Formats: sequence, structure tokens, C-alpha cells
Amino acid sequence: MITHSVFFKLIHKKGSDAEALFLSKAAALSSIPGVGNFQLLEEVSPKNSFDFGLSMEFPDQSTYDAYNTHPEHVAFVQQVWLNEVAEFQEIDHIPFSQ
Amino acid sequence: MITHSVFFKLIHKKGSDAEALFLSKAAALSSIPGVGNFQLLEEVSPKNSFDFGLSMEFPDQSTYDAYNTHPEHVAFVQQVWLNEVAEFQEIDHIPFSQ
Repeated sequence: MITHSVFFKLIHKKGSDAEALFLSKAAALSSIPGVGNFQLLEEVSPKNSFDFGLSMEFPDQSTYDAYNTHPEHVAFVQQVWLNEVAEFQEIDHIPFSQ
Repeated sequence: MITHSVFFKLIHKKGSDAEALFLSKAAALSSIPGVGNFQLLEEVSPKNSFDFGLSMEFPDQSTYDAYNTHPEHVAFVQQVWLNEVAEFQEIDHIPFSQ
């Protein structure tokens, strides 16, 4: 199981209609095949500049790869993400085993 | 429920005894009162420079605050973390509700 997450800050004002529209479009990524446990998050630490996060789980790398190249994901990145996200950090993790 | 996480890179070589010792000390943080669902993580995205992560859940801010000021946590930060971590990013999140 791979947990994929991204934390980000938008170019929109907090609480704006544009923010809500972005978040609804982001939430629609949950319908892409293979996406599990999709979560829309509020980032609350004062120790970074991010306001929101998305988190999802993939059973394996090939399912993750299929998500990355899925037309709905590609369209979201090209038409929405690149235009409306001010800064972001991707974090992916698996359970650690020594 | 607040999820507290931190992703980091150590000064130690990957797979070294020093790395293993650090991780075992980090894992001991799970015994501090109030810490829930403690996870030791391997960071696997090539889009950042972190190798590991810690994740834990607190039921509320006051429990989180008590963890931060707990003597075992303070000692770990002062005696281990500050000496052995090369870089890190804290990320805390709660479920987003519009």
C-alpha cells in the first residue's frame, strides 16, 4: 500500500468561491479507478505555508502510475492545478520495516 | 482528531547502525501518553529529499500540546533529533469540511 499525498496553498483567498470550486474539482479525483481512502485535508501546522492537502492510497505502484496518466488526472493538473496552486509539496509513504 | 506528521532525512548513511538506532529511539515516542496510531514511515516520492516519516494522531490540541512538552519528547528533540536530522518538514492535518 502506497499513500500518496500533496499539501498545497492556492492562489485564491481563504473561503472564496474560487477556493471552493478548486476543492470540488480536486475531490472529483477520488472517482479515478484505483484511488482508495481519498481524503481532502486542512493543513493546520504553523510550521509550513500549506493550507490544504489531498491524500489517497494505491495498492501498488502500477495502480499509482495508472492514476498519474489517467486522462482525468492529467486534465486536472493541466487545466486546474497548474493555474491555481501557488506552492505545493508531494509526500508519498509506505510503512517502514527494518 | 489531529494527525501530526514529520518527514525527514538523517545525517546517517542509509542502512547504517546509527540510522537503526535513531529510528528505534523515534519509535519509543509512541509510548508517550495521548499518542495514537503511531507509524514509522518510509518516504518514497522522488519529488522531495526526505527518507522517513513519523505519523501520529491526537484527539485534540491539548493532548498534542502535552506531547510537545512531555519530558521524553523534549529529551528526544534536544538529545537526538537536533543532532541527527539533516532536514525535515512538519505537516499536521485534520479532515477538511466546507
